[in-house]
Amino acid sequence: MKSLGYYNGEYGPLDEMRIPMNDRVCWFGDGVYEATPCANRRIFALDEHIDRFFKSAELLNLRPELTKTQLADLLHTLVLKVDSPEQSVYWQLTRGTADRAHPFPEGVSPNLWVMLRPWKQTNIYEKIRLITAEDTRFLHCNIKTLNLLPNVMASEKAKQAGCQEAVFHRGTRVTEGTHSNVHILKNGVFLTAPTDNLILPGIARSHLIAQCKKLGVPVSETPFTVPEMFRADEVLTSSASTLCLSVSHINGQAVGGAAPELLGQLQDSVLEEFRRATAPALEKASA
Amino acid sequence: MKSLGYYNGEYGPLDEMRIPMNDRVCWFGDGVYEATPCANRRIFALDEHIDRFFKSAELLNLRPELTKTQLADLLHTLVLKVDSPEQSVYWQLTRGTADRAHPFPEGVSPNLWVMLRPWKQTNIYEKIRLITAEDTRFLHCNIKTLNLLPNVMASEKAKQAGCQEAVFHRGTRVTEGTHSNVHILKNGVFLTAPTDNLILPGIARSHLIAQCKKLGVPVSETPFTVPEMFRADEVLTSSASTLCLSVSHINGQAVGGAAPELLGQLQDSVLEEFRRATAPALEKASA
Repeated sequence: MKSLGYYNGEYGPLDEMRIPMNDRVCWFGDGVYEATPCANRRIFALDEHIDRFFKSAELLNLRPELTKTQLADLLHTLVLKVDSPEQSVYWQLTRGTADRAHPFPEGVSPNLWVMLRPWKQTNIYEKIRLITAEDTRFLHCNIKTLNLLPNVMASEKAKQAGCQEAVFHRGTRVTEGTHSNVHILKNGVFLTAPTDNLILPGIARSHLIAQCKKLGVPVSETPFTVPEMFRADEVLTSSASTLCLSVSHINGQAVGGAAPELLGQLQDSVLEEFRRATAPALEKASA
Repeated sequence: MKSLGYYNGEYGPLDEMRIPMNDRVCWFGDGVYEATPCANRRIFALDEHIDRFFKSAELLNLRPELTKTQLADLLHTLVLKVDSPEQSVYWQLTRGTADRAHPFPEGVSPNLWVMLRPWKQTNIYEKIRLITAEDTRFLHCNIKTLNLLPNVMASEKAKQAGCQEAVFHRGTRVTEGTHSNVHILKNGVFLTAPTDNLILPGIARSHLIAQCKKLGVPVSETPFTVPEMFRADEVLTSSASTLCLSVSHINGQAVGGAAPELLGQLQDSVLEEFRRATAPALEKASA
């Protein structure tokens, strides 16, 4: 099939899938999620995404009823059922189905969801445009929850401005994008916000940091400001689905472009890693 | 039927209702809601709730496809289909059904939901217990959205502590409860947080203020602090479903109890108004 929806063991074409009205996602957005692409039916950085998924769940006292290995096996099985070998692999856990009441329902199992859709890698070397937006989100941005309204509103604002992403800031401090982390290169140093409760600990972010270390680029995990971002040598975003994009304009003003070589090395490096990790699996040699 | 779920024109027993997996509520909590009780099948303060519903929708660029009158007519019709004449009347609007992407989907209609359940009025004169909780919510608390995770987490904490509600504070400033507004009486004055972006402009709150004015009780819509709440003559919560409850303990410490007469007058007053507004409709006299 083209796109797949899975819910507690049942699955089918995404457009045809229905879920109970009393799933707590419907009244509270009470759940956590993960997303990562697969290429050649190999899911990128799956273990890391599953680790973060369990961590997000734990922070909300949500208890998955399957192990990390069982979840990985399920995802590996499901990606075989979708036509395209390149997919966006998305899954979430919600706090079960029960009559609406704020406190946790008793004696109820969480619901496991999977969504698989065809995915096409964006050109990593194509520059994007951002807008800035005041970060009005809650103080649990380290948890990958389904409470995403401020992200939706800022993304729409970016789209209306002809941009691909909005970068949030609390006062002058840059936090992250609506669906990416944001970093800068300045004087050969890679600067990125520290992983506190104001940003998601991005997995593409941690891969970027690893590549920096491999390339001998100093990394500083300290907050940077909006003016520093405007004056940076390069501005970068990272997410599992886009890896590492660079920014040409923010609020219509040209930014970056002053460290194209270092930027290119970093992008080559993360792209190569992605390609290696998702290369077609070798046929097993017959005995 | 006992409980009713309605979704875009279809309805049935709540437990049997299903909604599309691609409703944006499932991925983003992208919607707004309202809730108010009905007694004798008469919905309490319906016009005010519908006004706030349209206001919440507008603040998120959500456009209901029916008028306020049409929505009221729909709710009036649906409450006739549920066995109990006393119901919790809940409705919400989500940003439509579309493939997951943060910005608004194009060419998609919003989805209208209704949920009706039997409801029993709590004893307004029974005191409740609270806990305090740091307010870590987003800065759009004036909009009644489906992004309610911090409310869920604090409610669960209250329940675990044997309490009925958690009262949020930002630093020392009291904002509101997880599903109620919070007020204090001090030296004969009714103090309540002003309606900015940190609290929901409660309809029960505005009814309470109106009753204060009727009774000649001065009202001060200015922020008060956690220490002021602990030292208040009375601590009150208000919501459409509970009207106005008073608080005996916060974090296990006795509070209030110093202005029982004024408290009683206010409670009598809002209860009487509720009863009048939801009294059985008179049969039309035949000509």
